[in-house]
Amino acid sequence: MNKNNYTLLCDFYELTMSNGYLLSGMAENVCYFDVFYRTVPDGGGFAIAAGLEQVIDYIENLRFTEEDIEFLRSKGCFDERFLDYLRTFRFTGDIWAVPEGTVVFPNEPILTVRAPAIEAQFIETFVLLSINHQSLIATKANRIVRAAQGRAISEFGSRRAQGADGAIYGARAAYIAGCAGTACAIADRDFGVPCGGTMAHSWVQMFPTELEAFRTYCRLYPQNATLLVDTYNALRSGVLNAIRAFREAGIERGGIRFDSGDIAYLSRRARRMLDDAGLPGIKIIASNSLDEYIISDLIRQGAKVDSFGVGERLITSKDSPVFGGVYKLVAVERDGAVEPKIKISENASKITNPHFKRAFRLYDNATGKAEADLLCVFDEEPPDGSRPLELFDPEHTWKRKTIENYTARELGVRIYRSGKLVYDLPSIEEIRAHCTREVASLWDEVTRFENPHTYYVDLSEKLWGIKQQLLRRRDAE
Amino acid sequence: MNKNNYTLLCDFYELTMSNGYLLSGMAENVCYFDVFYRTVPDGGGFAIAAGLEQVIDYIENLRFTEEDIEFLRSKGCFDERFLDYLRTFRFTGDIWAVPEGTVVFPNEPILTVRAPAIEAQFIETFVLLSINHQSLIATKANRIVRAAQGRAISEFGSRRAQGADGAIYGARAAYIAGCAGTACAIADRDFGVPCGGTMAHSWVQMFPTELEAFRTYCRLYPQNATLLVDTYNALRSGVLNAIRAFREAGIERGGIRFDSGDIAYLSRRARRMLDDAGLPGIKIIASNSLDEYIISDLIRQGAKVDSFGVGERLITSKDSPVFGGVYKLVAVERDGAVEPKIKISENASKITNPHFKRAFRLYDNATGKAEADLLCVFDEEPPDGSRPLELFDPEHTWKRKTIENYTARELGVRIYRSGKLVYDLPSIEEIRAHCTREVASLWDEVTRFENPHTYYVDLSEKLWGIKQQLLRRRDAE
Repeated sequence: MNKNNYTLLCDFYELTMSNGYLLSGMAENVCYFDVFYRTVPDGGGFAIAAGLEQVIDYIENLRFTEEDIEFLRSKGCFDERFLDYLRTFRFTGDIWAVPEGTVVFPNEPILTVRAPAIEAQFIETFVLLSINHQSLIATKANRIVRAAQGRAISEFGSRRAQGADGAIYGARAAYIAGCAGTACAIADRDFGVPCGGTMAHSWVQMFPTELEAFRTYCRLYPQNATLLVDTYNALRSGVLNAIRAFREAGIERGGIRFDSGDIAYLSRRARRMLDDAGLPGIKIIASNSLDEYIISDLIRQGAKVDSFGVGERLITSKDSPVFGGVYKLVAVERDGAVEPKIKISENASKITNPHFKRAFRLYDNATGKAEADLLCVFDEEPPDGSRPLELFDPEHTWKRKTIENYTARELGVRIYRSGKLVYDLPSIEEIRAHCTREVASLWDEVTRFENPHTYYVDLSEKLWGIKQQLLRRRDAE
Repeated sequence: MNKNNYTLLCDFYELTMSNGYLLSGMAENVCYFDVFYRTVPDGGGFAIAAGLEQVIDYIENLRFTEEDIEFLRSKGCFDERFLDYLRTFRFTGDIWAVPEGTVVFPNEPILTVRAPAIEAQFIETFVLLSINHQSLIATKANRIVRAAQGRAISEFGSRRAQGADGAIYGARAAYIAGCAGTACAIADRDFGVPCGGTMAHSWVQMFPTELEAFRTYCRLYPQNATLLVDTYNALRSGVLNAIRAFREAGIERGGIRFDSGDIAYLSRRARRMLDDAGLPGIKIIASNSLDEYIISDLIRQGAKVDSFGVGERLITSKDSPVFGGVYKLVAVERDGAVEPKIKISENASKITNPHFKRAFRLYDNATGKAEADLLCVFDEEPPDGSRPLELFDPEHTWKRKTIENYTARELGVRIYRSGKLVYDLPSIEEIRAHCTREVASLWDEVTRFENPHTYYVDLSEKLWGIKQQLLRRRDAE
């Protein structure tokens, strides 16, 4: 577990509101917040949820130190009763979430918090930050992994990451999403993401000649020699010297790496040179500003690349560097009853799905493919597959579809019960395997990189009715 | 100081190369690496250097724990002599860098390391990561600050940052670059970045009515009441209720915030409503997906906004989320002499400026404005302003310009001498003030958001000659 205390990694308004709830006698009012997102990054058809483990670390470490309290006192706007309350502040609520590696669609809960107002409000920033960051990178990495059609993707981006956590948790999220490994050593030590890597241009430059640099490396690492061949001239010098060094050292399994130039051309030429030299076991690795589009194109053009190293465009999700997860109040408890809340907006797509909900994914029994998700009110009978289910588009309700012969799986699982962690955290390998199964359960139409089919996230009749009621009530105000 | 030990936040190849240098007897070969960048993010005319303080924290904490060594042993590719060497590994070299907040241009050194090969190689990833991240955010934040033409910018992006460090050090970099403050409380506690903030939509939703939510807030925070007015209907409900709450509480200095809708329209209408209500001291704050372009447009359209809260587009530098700083070998020492090294590329813009260098900025004495930067070999007589200096474009050498009556300032300062920190770290306020002066020293032509004038970074005759020699020598190989 990460022992960093990020209690004060919050937006200041969470503190002013919390102080306000306490002084107004509202601190113990129980409320429900959903984390969800509205738009898939990169115009894709789905996202991969990640970052839950770090939310758990955060909550387990959540406490205000005396220094924190002293700092807050110095701001001059907090009541002493509130500062005193913070001394024993702990999270005492409930959390449900989808396991990491789960495919998630817009407007469905990724995580739900039920807690006294002051606690539920307080954890907003870190919960969003962790889920937004890792879901962003997992979603991007999965696109890149799919583009490579079975060839390995290594995450190489630490130096261009947005901060240390960007590198470390980015490597974790990338591995969950299917990358084969990372260059980042600390992500291996702390999270078991396999790390690897061999040489930079500077290694080659440190020796009087490229050949000598390669010879030395082959002598040191006969089991793991990947030679970077483009420091001077890739084909006329690098590949020739690599062949010579491999042969002299008797290395049959190793690699060469191109970090510049036209990879389609260079890799085809190099493949022929290696094969002609009797070195079919030497693999070709390519790096240099790659992403899902360039990798797709390279493969289409017959590039002979066995694996790709992907840096900045993965670790920052360069084309789409924000995962817009939000944290919205969906219900409050009043006299023991759950009362739904809605956030209205001029923009219809920004209106929230109210209430404490459960989300189900419906799989066709014949194909095993996911057909639609269904959001229900928490106290509804869940769909159980025993009878046909009529789904309808929540905006265009005349669009209806009946599904039969399906299996329903609930997406969320219980993580906290009354402040106690009740979730058995899966290993990173389990999360990664779950992610692979999740993506495999999607129709190809949903996994297209551009203009994918919109997967349906529908509301139950009951939930839809409640939402309409709330909208009409607001309209009448 | 941040006490996190990020020693293993390195690329694995730094370890395999270091092991190789040690086993090949090259570990003590002294070499020089430059950190520089090639392209200004967002098509701008300059960048702001930041992240040095965290590089220093990293180096001060740099040591391998027994757990680290055990982890490396488990990888099965490191020699025991190397693992033993790591037990006492410390940085013993020299570092020069431009102070944080300095304006930097492409292809000039932001930081230079002189150290035994193994040490200089090893610190590459973290040095780049820290400088790339904070320079990226400082550069973006400064664009946004300039767009606001004197109105305050608050950084609001923690929840959309790429990890915890993205939020914390992003807030630090944004403040250096001129933001007035942040919403992120921990950035205030740890770095003195002033934090603030008042309420979210959930505060309003937690009360039976908007008016009651506002009244309660005004009662609690009469000195600092900024009311979020767009939970329901901004003009028909929010602003009216805010006016009523301010009047009842006798608050004349406070604020209202819009987080949605057309800010130009809403702010003009709200300004009139507030003024008509005798509340000219109530300020208007706007947030919601802002950046330098939208802020410029809003101001041009007469928006009556006193300050802006900027979130995801600042904290991720959304349009341009990568600062492409690189770490390149520029020289080695052989028998006490400094021998320049160059990295060739097919792409002329990727050819490095070789050698151990000093960078000077030349200011016109009449205007105080920066006219050009000059890179010299370390042992050259520096420009001293006492005689005219002929500058020439290093690519198009016929483009020449003589400057007279100038003052030369060296950009780099000594940070480490033989592994010892010899730099007095400035306070964040000093860094911020330095940044303001730096940007003020640029001609308007260089600070344009789009298609700015290219500022000249020229080479001395001597350095240019050495570079040509190295290029010719490589060509002959």
